[in-house]
Amino acid sequence: MNSIQLIPLAGMPEIVRASDIAALICSAVAEANEQLAHHDVVVVTQKIVSKAEGAMAQVDPDDPLSHKPLVEQESVRILRRRGELIISETRHGFVCANAGIDLSNVARGEAALLPVDPDRSARRIRDGIKGLTGVEVAVIISDTFGRPWRRGVTDVAIGAAGIFPVLDLRGTQDSYGRELQVTEVAIVDEIAGAAELVMGKASGIPVAIVRGVDESAFDLGSTRVGVAENLIRSPQEDLFR
Amino acid sequence: MNSIQLIPLAGMPEIVRASDIAALICSAVAEANEQLAHHDVVVVTQKIVSKAEGAMAQVDPDDPLSHKPLVEQESVRILRRRGELIISETRHGFVCANAGIDLSNVARGEAALLPVDPDRSARRIRDGIKGLTGVEVAVIISDTFGRPWRRGVTDVAIGAAGIFPVLDLRGTQDSYGRELQVTEVAIVDEIAGAAELVMGKASGIPVAIVRGVDESAFDLGSTRVGVAENLIRSPQEDLFR
Repeated sequence: MNSIQLIPLAGMPEIVRASDIAALICSAVAEANEQLAHHDVVVVTQKIVSKAEGAMAQVDPDDPLSHKPLVEQESVRILRRRGELIISETRHGFVCANAGIDLSNVARGEAALLPVDPDRSARRIRDGIKGLTGVEVAVIISDTFGRPWRRGVTDVAIGAAGIFPVLDLRGTQDSYGRELQVTEVAIVDEIAGAAELVMGKASGIPVAIVRGVDESAFDLGSTRVGVAENLIRSPQEDLFR
Repeated sequence: MNSIQLIPLAGMPEIVRASDIAALICSAVAEANEQLAHHDVVVVTQKIVSKAEGAMAQVDPDDPLSHKPLVEQESVRILRRRGELIISETRHGFVCANAGIDLSNVARGEAALLPVDPDRSARRIRDGIKGLTGVEVAVIISDTFGRPWRRGVTDVAIGAAGIFPVLDLRGTQDSYGRELQVTEVAIVDEIAGAAELVMGKASGIPVAIVRGVDESAFDLGSTRVGVAENLIRSPQEDLFR
């Protein structure tokens, strides 16, 4: 195994509706005297994707609960309620707090919704970077989710392109020559969480480059493999829904 | 923010009961012409900790279900059963499959249990490294857990020393000058997952060095802050137990 580098990308400007994220990433990389490389993974936070795609809603800036109707609107199923907290399933199938709607790092009076199709968002950014630089990267759209049983939040992948969300190790042997019990590793979630370590919640760095991920993880040819079909557990196979 | 490096540590020998993991890590680091640095995070997989501590049990190698009585024995509460799969809460408070017992990367006829007190295991390794090298590192003991709602497994922290498991951002402002909504980031889980990317499930690399984590994450003085009290959600505050 080789080392992996987690590189925060400084210099991204404020993102507004119709901002070209791929182009802005390429400019910021050039300004940082960096270069994107084949098999880099570019991790982009959901917030700037939602802003660029206009997946925003107006809320009353003086009413801390005014986004609650939006939460119900963006949910297909409510799993739990406690006080003001709603854990629900979004249209995409994600189970998270407040349907992924959040009010941090957006202008006063606005709320960011999840992108309509985060896998498509990832493909667009990936294709944009490829068109501008010729470099084949993978792209992950990350968001911050809580978890049951464990305190604190971690960043996970809500969209991906050019990388297999779940690394299937079926048939692989352990160091004793026996077949592995654990066969599916959610590497895009591990990469999204790793990238958070160099982005931070307060530092306003919305993009990180993850360099050195094992080449077997990449799916640069077809890019048809997304988070939606591969990482979301179906309600039928889920034990906690 | 600075870059972070994820460095797999090659050259760890087979771990047996009473192996001195701290000493073996220091030797492997020296053989690799590396040096541990202040504020490195050393991530150690649970499997070798359990082996060194003798947290092992005998199972019938010809009966794939012979570890099931162990699962019940190591659990304080069964949350779900489906077929052979048991999701339970361990004595430590971890909710995971099969009480964390596993049969990969152990000798035939053996099963690895979770360490009795993974925070103590982490402190011991940290203190051992400090004693041998004078270097103040943090240590995370990692294990591979599934999650509800999302397919695939990721590595998370089951023990930690020298680092705050949950980074508390209360009072921190976002880039618009407003208080952050999301205030507790489970950085030890993000670091454990990041380390998995260079350890792999089949490559037999049980230790990784994570270099460059923001210094505010460290708790090198007291090392009293562990996963058990800080990362495990209590049943009372948990909505899914």
